[in-house]
Amino acid sequence: MIMHYGVNRIPVGVLGASGYAGRELCALIAQHPRFSLAFATANEQRGQTVRLGRQDVTFTATDDAPLGDAAVVFAALPHGASLPWVERARNAGARVVDLSSDLRPGNAADLLGAVYGMPELGDATRAAIKVADIVANPGCYPTSILLALKPLVDAGLVAPGATIVANSASGVSGAGNSPKRELLFAEVADDYRAYGVGNSHRHLKEMTATIATLGGDSELIFTPHLLPVARGILSTITIPLVSPLADALAPFRDAYANEPFIEVVSEQPTLSDVVRRNVVRMTATMISGMRAPTLLVTSAIDNLVKGAAGQALQNANIMCELDETLGLPA
Amino acid sequence: MIMHYGVNRIPVGVLGASGYAGRELCALIAQHPRFSLAFATANEQRGQTVRLGRQDVTFTATDDAPLGDAAVVFAALPHGASLPWVERARNAGARVVDLSSDLRPGNAADLLGAVYGMPELGDATRAAIKVADIVANPGCYPTSILLALKPLVDAGLVAPGATIVANSASGVSGAGNSPKRELLFAEVADDYRAYGVGNSHRHLKEMTATIATLGGDSELIFTPHLLPVARGILSTITIPLVSPLADALAPFRDAYANEPFIEVVSEQPTLSDVVRRNVVRMTATMISGMRAPTLLVTSAIDNLVKGAAGQALQNANIMCELDETLGLPA
Amino acid sequence: MIMHYGVNRIPVGVLGASGYAGRELCALIAQHPRFSLAFATANEQRGQTVRLGRQDVTFTATDDAPLGDAAVVFAALPHGASLPWVERARNAGARVVDLSSDLRPGNAADLLGAVYGMPELGDATRAAIKVADIVANPGCYPTSILLALKPLVDAGLVAPGATIVANSASGVSGAGNSPKRELLFAEVADDYRAYGVGNSHRHLKEMTATIATLGGDSELIFTPHLLPVARGILSTITIPLVSPLADALAPFRDAYANEPFIEVVSEQPTLSDVVRRNVVRMTATMISGMRAPTLLVTSAIDNLVKGAAGQALQNANIMCELDETLGLPA
Amino acid sequence: MIMHYGVNRIPVGVLGASGYAGRELCALIAQHPRFSLAFATANEQRGQTVRLGRQDVTFTATDDAPLGDAAVVFAALPHGASLPWVERARNAGARVVDLSSDLRPGNAADLLGAVYGMPELGDATRAAIKVADIVANPGCYPTSILLALKPLVDAGLVAPGATIVANSASGVSGAGNSPKRELLFAEVADDYRAYGVGNSHRHLKEMTATIATLGGDSELIFTPHLLPVARGILSTITIPLVSPLADALAPFRDAYANEPFIEVVSEQPTLSDVVRRNVVRMTATMISGMRAPTLLVTSAIDNLVKGAAGQALQNANIMCELDETLGLPA
Repeated sequence: MIMHYGVNRIPVGVLGASGYAGRELCALIAQHPRFSLAFATANEQRGQTVRLGRQDVTFTATDDAPLGDAAVVFAALPHGASLPWVERARNAGARVVDLSSDLRPGNAADLLGAVYGMPELGDATRAAIKVADIVANPGCYPTSILLALKPLVDAGLVAPGATIVANSASGVSGAGNSPKRELLFAEVADDYRAYGVGNSHRHLKEMTATIATLGGDSELIFTPHLLPVARGILSTITIPLVSPLADALAPFRDAYANEPFIEVVSEQPTLSDVVRRNVVRMTATMISGMRAPTLLVTSAIDNLVKGAAGQALQNANIMCELDETLGLPA
Repeated sequence: MIMHYGVNRIPVGVLGASGYAGRELCALIAQHPRFSLAFATANEQRGQTVRLGRQDVTFTATDDAPLGDAAVVFAALPHGASLPWVERARNAGARVVDLSSDLRPGNAADLLGAVYGMPELGDATRAAIKVADIVANPGCYPTSILLALKPLVDAGLVAPGATIVANSASGVSGAGNSPKRELLFAEVADDYRAYGVGNSHRHLKEMTATIATLGGDSELIFTPHLLPVARGILSTITIPLVSPLADALAPFRDAYANEPFIEVVSEQPTLSDVVRRNVVRMTATMISGMRAPTLLVTSAIDNLVKGAAGQALQNANIMCELDETLGLPA
Repeated sequence: MIMHYGVNRIPVGVLGASGYAGRELCALIAQHPRFSLAFATANEQRGQTVRLGRQDVTFTATDDAPLGDAAVVFAALPHGASLPWVERARNAGARVVDLSSDLRPGNAADLLGAVYGMPELGDATRAAIKVADIVANPGCYPTSILLALKPLVDAGLVAPGATIVANSASGVSGAGNSPKRELLFAEVADDYRAYGVGNSHRHLKEMTATIATLGGDSELIFTPHLLPVARGILSTITIPLVSPLADALAPFRDAYANEPFIEVVSEQPTLSDVVRRNVVRMTATMISGMRAPTLLVTSAIDNLVKGAAGQALQNANIMCELDETLGLPA
Repeated sequence: MIMHYGVNRIPVGVLGASGYAGRELCALIAQHPRFSLAFATANEQRGQTVRLGRQDVTFTATDDAPLGDAAVVFAALPHGASLPWVERARNAGARVVDLSSDLRPGNAADLLGAVYGMPELGDATRAAIKVADIVANPGCYPTSILLALKPLVDAGLVAPGATIVANSASGVSGAGNSPKRELLFAEVADDYRAYGVGNSHRHLKEMTATIATLGGDSELIFTPHLLPVARGILSTITIPLVSPLADALAPFRDAYANEPFIEVVSEQPTLSDVVRRNVVRMTATMISGMRAPTLLVTSAIDNLVKGAAGQALQNANIMCELDETLGLPA
């Protein structure tokens, strides 16, 4: 592995670097002007060297990672396997951005004091990230849905006791790169299906817990789908409102006027608008002919960038008091 | 064009045969044991011979179609252009299955007495199709959504005044084969987007009018999406119920026990399950953790078969008092 | 498993039924008018029931297959694993169509007297298949390439000592459905690559041995490629000739005039022309401006049908003295 | 259109900016540190504003382009339409990079003194580009093929009078974005075909003329194919040699040791290796078992970057005496 330990470089490490999120992280770190990759672990592929972005990276065993050498450790390990490594990294003196769901809101009783790392939730969140030892990086679906709901909840626009319906469609990289028959090209191509139906998806509790934290009392129906594309998530969300909006985009434009990574647009966002970029792109439309006023919001992200590695790096920028946009494709 | 005028063959014609639905019709007619193709019109491509299924078909000008020679004329013309041709065919003595939206419920004041040709709506519908001069063939989205709702409406299971949310995703062939930049391969591949948002899609009124006819008072939020696949529609529908269902599939299994073209299954239906088949495949799941009982139904069809040409042929089978399943891939 | 042991049904079995070729075989057998499926084995998935064509099929362990109950056993086992099972089936009294490469020309010294089952090689081949105990079903690439060369070799049109260059591109199903990382959707989509370069692909010796058997002295450069599609092979072949052809298609039309499964056409064959059909579709063009006359032949097949399961069934039809086209989609 | 006329910015213009190559050019110019976009013309879409890379670009009519304001004009007009505009731009005082085939070797008697802009052909080519008024930007297929042949021709390794066979497969963006039925998603998806067969493709003469200029006497068989992907070309080339190469990569590594945009690798290059990058990636393998020594070279490029817009910008960098790699994704 090429390592640039220049005077200005802050060493960071990646645990679980061979998965899609881990690889994306290594590639983004390679072009980050202030971070350098101190280690990248992948037990199964240890010893292998792969090109990730502008760098050749050699995977090491996770046990061999010099955790204490990194200012920030990114844990991109499988859900359920992350917790002990987060603790080891913290005990070794590193700060941690954990990309698993283990430490996110709604997932565990003892969250190790992890801060939910969705900077666009506002100033208090950013302040907490800045000083956090451990940041729980948000899930991909929650990133696309929660940032579409937050301006409405904050402004008191959501009807009391509303049922919000969120349908999301995700590219296959969201399912990881462990070899599984149902993820083979010939199984996924030309196909489309729902999964995790009936509110059974792991990300639901992360979303409902966060909505409650924001002060909302809505309930959520969340149905994810598998798209025959490699990358990207589009969420389509219906939200009962207290009253019609004359300008459906206004709450979003107001809330996100200064956010570098949120694009509020008047046309429908598409996957190609956001792929390989660290942005959430969204629009909103009042649904015509309804008895009660209802808003349709659609929001698109790249599940591997703003939905995983990009947001993790955004959090690390904040933690290291760097410009939040540094090294991130917007 | 090869024409088999055997003693047993019933001559049928196709107006607008060069579009995707028209081509699919010609291909299905070619393998139908009792129909023979008397003419296939396509003004722009008149004179061209193309292989459609097991037959070479030569397109003629629409004006040259010997309408009176056909027992049944299938009109697969663009929306808005169909009405005068339906009348001409009827005046020439043919019965008509119209695949455009022009004569469907909710679309026109004077529907020429057209019967809405969705056989699975029940015995009365089948009886009406049997004697109809003109059948309005249902839209693709309505086929996937209405047949998912009907058992619930019929059984009085839908909560009064419910808001039903239907998100559908369709393959690109649903947009036709007129050359448009936004339908080019390089524009659609790897992408996904919503369109017709805010209840602005043409198919909405067909659905709301039919729900009302069935006796329902629900309102519908319908959002279609464009999938990077050639064929297939999956609809994901949330339906507030009057009470929880112990067996979410029971209403569907009861209603459709004798339907040859409806598959009620326990696993999630996918596009590959239904492509090139004249079926609707559906499942249902109670959504957990909701304040009010809510059902999730997902239903899949091939937009060109059960959503267009196959259903048209199914209607023609009924009109000609043939076995309803004749010549149809199930 | 549903088994139809009607008076007219000939029981057949499938070893290795869970792979793509095995599944295709089961689906084709399900719609074959004279064969019935006596067993379908898949060790890893034993006990599972899957829908294959019009039938639900329950996989059994290979050891439990009642080999002697089948008139014909199709062995769709991995290359290298087939031989012992072919012998067991033969010893149990069954005739065998082996889809592996183990018994094909050029592959083994002791071929168990297997006949190379490419019926279109001519009358002698068909006569041998008819009485064979064991038929070695051809590889997918060889099917697309050898049938494009045979008319030229037979007619003495290939330049002596010619170097034939065959570039083939195959859909991913050709690589099987064992879970491998490099076959995941996100790895294959939007990509294309050569593999088995430098004449290292397993199918090369099958082709060179067969060319020699036909009396040719050409050498072959064969380069396969992986296409981001599920099914289909297109081979593009340049062949130095002894003299220019005034009508490039004539040798092919002459040779294949009575072949039900070979289509000689004047336009370029495409994958969509042949997918789900048991045909080879080909065209030929003289290459302009060459010092020595050179022909370009392109030929397309479905790798799972004419390139595997369909051709296997075609062979079984011949072995059982049925109409060669029975139950095969042409 | 946002225009940055900073002190260091060199104004450039794009004629035909709405096609795929024109859009890619605008996007690359938007992130180029020294060029600024003075105008972008697109007659059909004039007045429209589109996001191209980091810039909003408003298309103007070609007639309204202030040609004289640009130091370099990129002409990305259709083949056959470019010549008069190249002359107008030159007469207005601009230097021109023409992306059409009109001025390339082998295409026209009077080439307006255009220099063939393939910098990796060597020092003399670079010196000529530097002072050229008009640069003919190479075709996409020729870029992938000629740079694979040049080291062998230069080193005298190609067998005298050799027949080189080049099969190339290209993504659909190579066919442009004019709406044509055969380029619709549903026509291209899951398909693959040859076209321009028999040495009839426009790019052949560009390649044969350049091979002759390099001193080669080989003839070429070139067969392009259409891939169901948006971007990328892979060329698979067989080359008879004078003698076997002990190290097949050596001639390429020697020739291109100092080339920033050529990657000589030991594994097979794939489209995903090169997409969105201004590189040619290639490998070479001796073909085993041949009577005469023959080499297989595979080379991959992004048809819109190194095969069009990227190479055009590389040429403009040379013309403006900037670092050749400036603003180019490698």
